[in-house]
Amino acid sequence: MPDDILLSQIDGPIATLTLNNPAALNALSTAMLTRLEAALDAIAATPVRVVILRASGKTFCAGHDLREIQSFRAAPNHGKAAFTALFALCARVMQKIAGLPQPVIAQVQGVATAAGCQLAASCDMVVAAETARFGVNGVNIGLFCHTPLVALSRKIAPATAFELAATGEFISAARAQTLGLVTRLAPPDQLDAEARCLADLLAQKLPLALAMGKRAAGQPLADAYAKASAAMIDNLLAPETAEGIRAFLEKRPPNWP
Amino acid sequence: MPDDILLSQIDGPIATLTLNNPAALNALSTAMLTRLEAALDAIAATPVRVVILRASGKTFCAGHDLREIQSFRAAPNHGKAAFTALFALCARVMQKIAGLPQPVIAQVQGVATAAGCQLAASCDMVVAAETARFGVNGVNIGLFCHTPLVALSRKIAPATAFELAATGEFISAARAQTLGLVTRLAPPDQLDAEARCLADLLAQKLPLALAMGKRAAGQPLADAYAKASAAMIDNLLAPETAEGIRAFLEKRPPNWP
Amino acid sequence: MPDDILLSQIDGPIATLTLNNPAALNALSTAMLTRLEAALDAIAATPVRVVILRASGKTFCAGHDLREIQSFRAAPNHGKAAFTALFALCARVMQKIAGLPQPVIAQVQGVATAAGCQLAASCDMVVAAETARFGVNGVNIGLFCHTPLVALSRKIAPATAFELAATGEFISAARAQTLGLVTRLAPPDQLDAEARCLADLLAQKLPLALAMGKRAAGQPLADAYAKASAAMIDNLLAPETAEGIRAFLEKRPPNWP
Repeated sequence: MPDDILLSQIDGPIATLTLNNPAALNALSTAMLTRLEAALDAIAATPVRVVILRASGKTFCAGHDLREIQSFRAAPNHGKAAFTALFALCARVMQKIAGLPQPVIAQVQGVATAAGCQLAASCDMVVAAETARFGVNGVNIGLFCHTPLVALSRKIAPATAFELAATGEFISAARAQTLGLVTRLAPPDQLDAEARCLADLLAQKLPLALAMGKRAAGQPLADAYAKASAAMIDNLLAPETAEGIRAFLEKRPPNWP
Repeated sequence: MPDDILLSQIDGPIATLTLNNPAALNALSTAMLTRLEAALDAIAATPVRVVILRASGKTFCAGHDLREIQSFRAAPNHGKAAFTALFALCARVMQKIAGLPQPVIAQVQGVATAAGCQLAASCDMVVAAETARFGVNGVNIGLFCHTPLVALSRKIAPATAFELAATGEFISAARAQTLGLVTRLAPPDQLDAEARCLADLLAQKLPLALAMGKRAAGQPLADAYAKASAAMIDNLLAPETAEGIRAFLEKRPPNWP
Repeated sequence: MPDDILLSQIDGPIATLTLNNPAALNALSTAMLTRLEAALDAIAATPVRVVILRASGKTFCAGHDLREIQSFRAAPNHGKAAFTALFALCARVMQKIAGLPQPVIAQVQGVATAAGCQLAASCDMVVAAETARFGVNGVNIGLFCHTPLVALSRKIAPATAFELAATGEFISAARAQTLGLVTRLAPPDQLDAEARCLADLLAQKLPLALAMGKRAAGQPLADAYAKASAAMIDNLLAPETAEGIRAFLEKRPPNWP
């Protein structure tokens, strides 16, 4: 394995995690989510003060790994046990970001879609390149973005989040800022510096005060994720959704009734 | 009856409901609400994929029928039983829109006020003419817009919704878009096309995925409507509010202490 | 005592409360909070229809009185009982504004920070001078703005409120309006007139309808304040926070590990 799919680097008070599987559009495969979970657990136990979550390549994160999802369908019950394990893992990772004592900054340089948009929205703050784009477009393959909406609806108005998920349309970073998802915009070549600047500012604060504030301001997510994950699995088990994902992977329109 | 107060038309995957009582500013009388309830029930059982709710004439909907409300006061207990039935019916219609498996688009061409603004806000998406205006101005006749705020506070910030209801001021479609109530604006002569374009986009999605998403994203409304309806009835039974509505219908200022 | 720290004036249907301790940046000392509580109680029993809360001098309100807070530390348990009493009093005052039957307008002419920002956000509407500034910057002295976020998160998106509290950054009145905290902006020399204009508009409405609406639209705050006050006290009792406040008062950087 020449490249590691998740890079972790600590530089003084700032930890940087880099999704590093650009050939797979940094998809949230079981392998990537497992690595993220371990990395977040490791950071929680260090004196690190701020975390930056960034990505290699053109895409920030394209969401779940659809090839892996389709591969699960051969198992008994059309893969229900594997789907359940995948969405439990994914919900755990998203909640670990919220549960981390340190603030986490998403640094979004490109497209963040479906669970990739959820990953960005799960961070405490989102710094985006002016050229970044956001969407929750699973509906286009017949899989409504139930779980991404849990995170997104805590950053933008739930009715707006629902419309984005229903239409599958992408929004610009500027519109994401107006809506409340993105807090800082930067030209692409200044994105690293902008995220670092925010991290430096946060690193000067008293960690104990930030940790207490993050815990107090956090809303309980467990119930919302339990319900949304169940909806996700039901949706995945619909034959039309199996066909929708198959069609997408085969680059053809879905054969829906 | 030459004109039907509610027109229902199905064109392929898209159903269009048209409030068609412009002489009464498309008021939500018992008759209109009863027709809306039946039309929504009928659509739920069809393979229709998207619903457009629009209106004839210059006004989208002026809210409750104040002449009907005043006529109830002659009954025992100042009409309390009739008020209770009216607000139960209204809350049922608003929740049926939320409970419908299909997405519902409000197409607002003119003024949407009080329960008319509630009707628009209860739809999943609002497409408005640039000349449309929105308000929750019952306070001007002494009847605070309790129930409209249930729907409006799910689209815009509750504190902003309260201010609009307290001042009774109207806002432009552009401001309604900034606040999150309106999702798409169109010049008046392109409003039909814009709503149709959004409906066509939604009609291409997997209905099962949209229905699951709408159900999962929906918030329980029953409790909120039960409380707001009780407040509405108490407010209606105040003698000052009876005088406020009477004064409005007689086109004179209210005689308040 | 030549100057009274809280001025109360009734002019027809409008009561005006003026924080009048500009030398102390109108800090919310025990004395000021006690006076505010009594003044609100007194207004609740009058036929006043609208309340304007304004301030003398350049600063609207700088939050808690840090010298008073430090003086409490000499008592047993590092002042825990005194901190508990102070935050109970403060939460009571903020909830009295929400519980008042009359609408309350904050008229913000200058900086509103920490509990001073909370005071403005606790009002039903905020009219601000274009030169006013808002912040929840307790984190800079090691005391996260837990209780201010209870009020602020009801006016602006909770994630945005958290970011402001984590970075301690100030925002302009124009940005506060975009976010939803401020509802009307005015040039500094027209601020009095703008607040008065809004108060006059509200004074024309039926008080009973406004009071019912305010009660119905209000969200229960007691639980949120109980939790946030406990977090505030824990945070205050951290030795690093004691040092943070000491350093601020001595105009030197904190000596944090």
